[in-house]
Amino acid sequence: MDFAPSARAAAVADETRRFLDEEVLPAEPVLAEQLAATPDEWGFRPVVDDLRRAARERGLWNLFLPGTRDDGSAGLSNLDYAPVAELSGRSPKLAPVAMNCAAPDTGNMELLNDFGTASQRDEWLAPLLDARIRSAFCMTEPEVASSDATNIATRIRRDGDEFVISGRKWWSTGAMNPDATLFIVMGKTDPDAPRHRQQSMVLVPRDAPGVEVVRPLTVFGYDDRDHGGHAEVAFHDVRVPVSNLLGGEGEGFAMAQARLGPGRIHHCMRLIGMGERAIELMRERAGSRVAFGRPLAEQGVVREWIARSRVELEAMRLLVLKTAWLMDTVGNRQAMTEIQSIKIAVPGTVQGILDRAMQLHGGGGVSSDHPLAEMYAAARTLRLADGPDEVHLNSLGRAQLRDPAWPFPGTSTTTKGTLT
Amino acid sequence: MDFAPSARAAAVADETRRFLDEEVLPAEPVLAEQLAATPDEWGFRPVVDDLRRAARERGLWNLFLPGTRDDGSAGLSNLDYAPVAELSGRSPKLAPVAMNCAAPDTGNMELLNDFGTASQRDEWLAPLLDARIRSAFCMTEPEVASSDATNIATRIRRDGDEFVISGRKWWSTGAMNPDATLFIVMGKTDPDAPRHRQQSMVLVPRDAPGVEVVRPLTVFGYDDRDHGGHAEVAFHDVRVPVSNLLGGEGEGFAMAQARLGPGRIHHCMRLIGMGERAIELMRERAGSRVAFGRPLAEQGVVREWIARSRVELEAMRLLVLKTAWLMDTVGNRQAMTEIQSIKIAVPGTVQGILDRAMQLHGGGGVSSDHPLAEMYAAARTLRLADGPDEVHLNSLGRAQLRDPAWPFPGTSTTTKGTLT
Amino acid sequence: MDFAPSARAAAVADETRRFLDEEVLPAEPVLAEQLAATPDEWGFRPVVDDLRRAARERGLWNLFLPGTRDDGSAGLSNLDYAPVAELSGRSPKLAPVAMNCAAPDTGNMELLNDFGTASQRDEWLAPLLDARIRSAFCMTEPEVASSDATNIATRIRRDGDEFVISGRKWWSTGAMNPDATLFIVMGKTDPDAPRHRQQSMVLVPRDAPGVEVVRPLTVFGYDDRDHGGHAEVAFHDVRVPVSNLLGGEGEGFAMAQARLGPGRIHHCMRLIGMGERAIELMRERAGSRVAFGRPLAEQGVVREWIARSRVELEAMRLLVLKTAWLMDTVGNRQAMTEIQSIKIAVPGTVQGILDRAMQLHGGGGVSSDHPLAEMYAAARTLRLADGPDEVHLNSLGRAQLRDPAWPFPGTSTTTKGTLT
Amino acid sequence: MDFAPSARAAAVADETRRFLDEEVLPAEPVLAEQLAATPDEWGFRPVVDDLRRAARERGLWNLFLPGTRDDGSAGLSNLDYAPVAELSGRSPKLAPVAMNCAAPDTGNMELLNDFGTASQRDEWLAPLLDARIRSAFCMTEPEVASSDATNIATRIRRDGDEFVISGRKWWSTGAMNPDATLFIVMGKTDPDAPRHRQQSMVLVPRDAPGVEVVRPLTVFGYDDRDHGGHAEVAFHDVRVPVSNLLGGEGEGFAMAQARLGPGRIHHCMRLIGMGERAIELMRERAGSRVAFGRPLAEQGVVREWIARSRVELEAMRLLVLKTAWLMDTVGNRQAMTEIQSIKIAVPGTVQGILDRAMQLHGGGGVSSDHPLAEMYAAARTLRLADGPDEVHLNSLGRAQLRDPAWPFPGTSTTTKGTLT
Repeated sequence: MDFAPSARAAAVADETRRFLDEEVLPAEPVLAEQLAATPDEWGFRPVVDDLRRAARERGLWNLFLPGTRDDGSAGLSNLDYAPVAELSGRSPKLAPVAMNCAAPDTGNMELLNDFGTASQRDEWLAPLLDARIRSAFCMTEPEVASSDATNIATRIRRDGDEFVISGRKWWSTGAMNPDATLFIVMGKTDPDAPRHRQQSMVLVPRDAPGVEVVRPLTVFGYDDRDHGGHAEVAFHDVRVPVSNLLGGEGEGFAMAQARLGPGRIHHCMRLIGMGERAIELMRERAGSRVAFGRPLAEQGVVREWIARSRVELEAMRLLVLKTAWLMDTVGNRQAMTEIQSIKIAVPGTVQGILDRAMQLHGGGGVSSDHPLAEMYAAARTLRLADGPDEVHLNSLGRAQLRDPAWPFPGTSTTTKGTLT
Repeated sequence: MDFAPSARAAAVADETRRFLDEEVLPAEPVLAEQLAATPDEWGFRPVVDDLRRAARERGLWNLFLPGTRDDGSAGLSNLDYAPVAELSGRSPKLAPVAMNCAAPDTGNMELLNDFGTASQRDEWLAPLLDARIRSAFCMTEPEVASSDATNIATRIRRDGDEFVISGRKWWSTGAMNPDATLFIVMGKTDPDAPRHRQQSMVLVPRDAPGVEVVRPLTVFGYDDRDHGGHAEVAFHDVRVPVSNLLGGEGEGFAMAQARLGPGRIHHCMRLIGMGERAIELMRERAGSRVAFGRPLAEQGVVREWIARSRVELEAMRLLVLKTAWLMDTVGNRQAMTEIQSIKIAVPGTVQGILDRAMQLHGGGGVSSDHPLAEMYAAARTLRLADGPDEVHLNSLGRAQLRDPAWPFPGTSTTTKGTLT
Repeated sequence: MDFAPSARAAAVADETRRFLDEEVLPAEPVLAEQLAATPDEWGFRPVVDDLRRAARERGLWNLFLPGTRDDGSAGLSNLDYAPVAELSGRSPKLAPVAMNCAAPDTGNMELLNDFGTASQRDEWLAPLLDARIRSAFCMTEPEVASSDATNIATRIRRDGDEFVISGRKWWSTGAMNPDATLFIVMGKTDPDAPRHRQQSMVLVPRDAPGVEVVRPLTVFGYDDRDHGGHAEVAFHDVRVPVSNLLGGEGEGFAMAQARLGPGRIHHCMRLIGMGERAIELMRERAGSRVAFGRPLAEQGVVREWIARSRVELEAMRLLVLKTAWLMDTVGNRQAMTEIQSIKIAVPGTVQGILDRAMQLHGGGGVSSDHPLAEMYAAARTLRLADGPDEVHLNSLGRAQLRDPAWPFPGTSTTTKGTLT
Repeated sequence: MDFAPSARAAAVADETRRFLDEEVLPAEPVLAEQLAATPDEWGFRPVVDDLRRAARERGLWNLFLPGTRDDGSAGLSNLDYAPVAELSGRSPKLAPVAMNCAAPDTGNMELLNDFGTASQRDEWLAPLLDARIRSAFCMTEPEVASSDATNIATRIRRDGDEFVISGRKWWSTGAMNPDATLFIVMGKTDPDAPRHRQQSMVLVPRDAPGVEVVRPLTVFGYDDRDHGGHAEVAFHDVRVPVSNLLGGEGEGFAMAQARLGPGRIHHCMRLIGMGERAIELMRERAGSRVAFGRPLAEQGVVREWIARSRVELEAMRLLVLKTAWLMDTVGNRQAMTEIQSIKIAVPGTVQGILDRAMQLHGGGGVSSDHPLAEMYAAARTLRLADGPDEVHLNSLGRAQLRDPAWPFPGTSTTTKGTLT
């Protein structure tokens, strides 16, 4: 169980840290200004283009994509990518998009990379890797408990050489952005097949007749306008050619699961970075603010907050690193227990750290003068996005009751024999 | 220690409940529509006028104002007002304003009622009681820890027959609303006086030269646009006649303290109502939603959430009622320990209940499709507004260490002899 | 909803407080000495007899027993009894037994009082009221989940004029004490009857052939030797005359439920007193101990602990008082929701307060030099005794889902119409 | 940051697991019987001798002692020792003593090994390593806040060729055992020296005139009689030759600090093992117990408990492993932040896991029928032993405020440059 990054990864992480300190953090107020100046737009603001240029120049581009470097991917393992993603979490509205490592495009690119035909990759993956377009992933539905993906009700009927899609999705992140020209839609192609073989995914161009972007949703008052927001989208008998099927028919559920593992750990890595940012801000505030005659830094309660935050965050980081290492060494499927573990533990822990940081900042903490409240909303939401905590707790608990095996370092009695 | 309301109070509470069920709750989607149609305004929407008419007809107007009925006030004690305010908390964006019982106007009206001259009352209190204008309370400052009001830095210099005000305030709730024509401003008239005698309050018309409403602040992502938002306000050598002094010179600190007690308990009463609304929504959701083959209502974890919420909320209600009863029987000053207690305990407890309710609603819970996320933001903010929890905990702890006395029902050994 | 005690109750509570301060608290070290001198005994030590004499002289005897004073009972309502029981909780090993108000005798006396025949009352109730004997309640069984009393497996077969009892019980509190000459045993008389009509209770003399007191159990290392401990008891075909049936055949379940309500609230009242003792001890310690150059009383974290403890404890007290008042006004059955509420909330809250107090006392806090660790063990155990929290949470949650009614002060819409 | 154990360490851990499963766990009831048969003794029972023989044969002896194997120590790094100590924590009353790896002897042997003269090592270390004698560490004092070791009041005066020791200690673990023939006593040799140079340690034979073992202390209700308990010890002008000085004069504080690091991590390693035992017991209970018609294993709340316990425990294990790895690679002093972190986080987390396990076991959970309550008492006590959490939180918080550096894997910007 070796968490040390490769030499290349260490260099990339160093560069990422410099990028953050030198360019991204200073760009945060610029974004705020540009947002204030264009209150009605749903796409990226000019500052993002500047940062993207800088990121490309620094070699910080598409680093999320695992694989060998020969195939154009970054060649970083999950473990290598961890500090990069964590650092990007310090400025979650800017750094991930600047580095073309932002959800949902990352997951969509992975899907296209792993399951797309050559033609699909040419048409959609290439411009996504180049950040010329964006994409949305249309899975969650308002009417059913979508944490169980077999509940998905959207229908994808075959009609000759076409699929006809009808249904209603929401929380389609990024879909308000007119540049999001690709919607990957999950639906049922065969309701009579076995439970996990009923679903398929199809590629739907935004401008296909019958696609209706109904409305934006908000997250604690935030519309995430600069990222394309979160949309409710209706599909009214939308027709696409059968060649728009992504992967095989009936493989939608498996592909969705495959997409979720990396997605979840990326969220957790960035959350660690948000926690670090919160500690940075607490330190600054505690060092500079005086209340009741003493600097906050000298007050016992404040010290406890910072100490607890540090300890909790490091425990979460180690759990994430172990998960990444497992994904690299035994594969995503074998790392399922650990992926569930971080999904359960990290968002709530970081939410707690952000809560302390907000409290330390008083009124400013809940306002947009600091990034804390928006990060807090993100962390809170991740306790229910991609399946609420309770679903994962129940599943993990059941698995533990069936099989006590847990990778235990230092003994050969684990069922995951390669762990040491 | 008798928490039973008077017959009149019970009738008023009944009427309030009917008003909520019959008119206010159904008006919530109407407000949402009107807000969507006028995204740039900062004042009340037409639906509020309709509700105000209805509230007046039902006799549900200005009920917050204690006093005898002869003087035009509602004649409700704090204990009597508790269920009314609680019920209004079920729809916190609409019910309090509909009943002219919304902060910050209530506190401002109390100040004018208690400390205003006849002329000040004519000019400002009358239209406020009649909801023809609104008002803001400008106390908190960005540069100093305002939980200790003696830190206030805004200067109010006397210059002949005028006061000259210079300083910067923020979190001036309601001040974005152009109808808020009165700003009550706290500042230092005599920095050389004893610590708690340096401050005074002056009445500043919104249109006085030098008043600059700088920008709106957001709470999480909410701008509370329909209520006049929360403003940063700069006072650039603003001049008002000396007759605009509210109360006496040097009495600003004491008046602010007097204003805070009722303000805090009103917040807590409404928070109880928010908690009740959260339980209502949990019940509906649990009864109607199916996940993993079983209604949520049959899942043990969900039942625990609802049970815990019920128990916690009732404990908080009783603490609020006791505080109200003490304010009625021994006075606000004597009830300080209890006011601090509810200030510490209620917002966090209700935040926890709202958290469960959001989680039960999945993605919808953090969106504007339900009132939960906005209530959550309000509850979270009340953990730091009017002094962060930690200030009150420290003060209460110190007081307990000095003097163990706590009203102990059933014995005569309490220092608050009238309690039984 | 009036929590004020009657004049008589206030006088009794005052006398109880004096009794505690003047006699019981000073007797605690005496008990410790007497225990150390007689390590092998299971009954009361001489100091208890002294205190009992004193309690009788002060009129503090059998106060737990509700009823009119004509019938020999104390004539205190549940609300009246609350401060008395609370005060006795400040010294839980001595005060309740001194006042003949200790479990399990209180519940057993209530059973005999409510359901016993004249002859049973003469034989068993009279000496219990006079503290000449003690008693045990044999209900919980090691082999079944006894929180659901219908699971009870002990058999009570009729054989002519006798009942034959066979089964195994544990957590029979007090049964190690040889003076506990009466065992009230719950078992199944008719396994074919409807679920809640299968059980009956019989009075079993300790010396009946076939009664085997198997072994003492410990609670966190404590054997509660001075109170008769907690025994495992086997009944090997024990025969008693049919006249030893308590109440009617098939009424055992209902009688057990009737016994539990008062038992639970008495535990909660005493827990409030333990919480008060913990705060007293924290205050003393914080005022006298210096660490890192400053008295503990000046350290922010310590102040927070004391403040939080005060607020939490008062909320719990009010919940208990409301429950008592409901039991008095609408009856124990109607107060079931509230009894469950305090059963859920009070032990855990007081455990938390005791935890802080232990921490403040360092090593001494977990030792027998202070009463904190033993109180902590008691509070922790009450989270699972008489049904674990989870059973009550599930039941309360289900009830809330069925019927939202909760006594709501100030409105007539509650289903419990008499509450205001 | 590589947590993989060496091949030898993996083999030792495997052997330890077999030892536990085959011999130690089955010996637990034997110990219980032997304890019941000899209620007045304070030393090890015969079963311990049997296990010790077995442990020696398996090569599981003195594994705690770091160093090269040439010098007789086990040759295990801290990281290597982690799984061994963890496994021993599954049976904390038997396994550590069986393997001669139990506190306080381990720390005392380390002191003698690191600071003892050849003669001191011959006289005391050899028999300790051979388990022929036991020892106590007399540091904590009842009268002063001993978490700040500079407060120690015991005096060690030089008088010719002798030291004269006078003072009072408590929580001298193991000192009730008559086989504990060595007391290592910390006291002040020079109260006028700089704060951290006033203290020294001397070796005091148990039978030196003036040594008074005053009384045993209990931890909750446990007297830990089988381990020699925890004693209050008075030193009445006890005289030892100056050659009994351990290390140099004035080095007592530094030596105590040196002793604490390994002691704290060993405690934490064993706590992880206690947590694993708790999960094992929860799994057994949940799989076998039926309540309200369904096995506990099918109840959502139970699954959540097991899942949360698993996730929390693994996070704690990783934090402990990282700390061990740091101690191995950069030294104990450089690992101070991490040692504080685990001291803060592990006991409380494991206490919470044990709490769930107890609750799942009902009455049996708090009794001696399962090891849970005794483990719980141990975990709770470790929140205040060796310095209460609050002292470490304050110190860690202050350090974080001064210097944000935290080993950040994957970047070279950390101040602990060798970490990757």
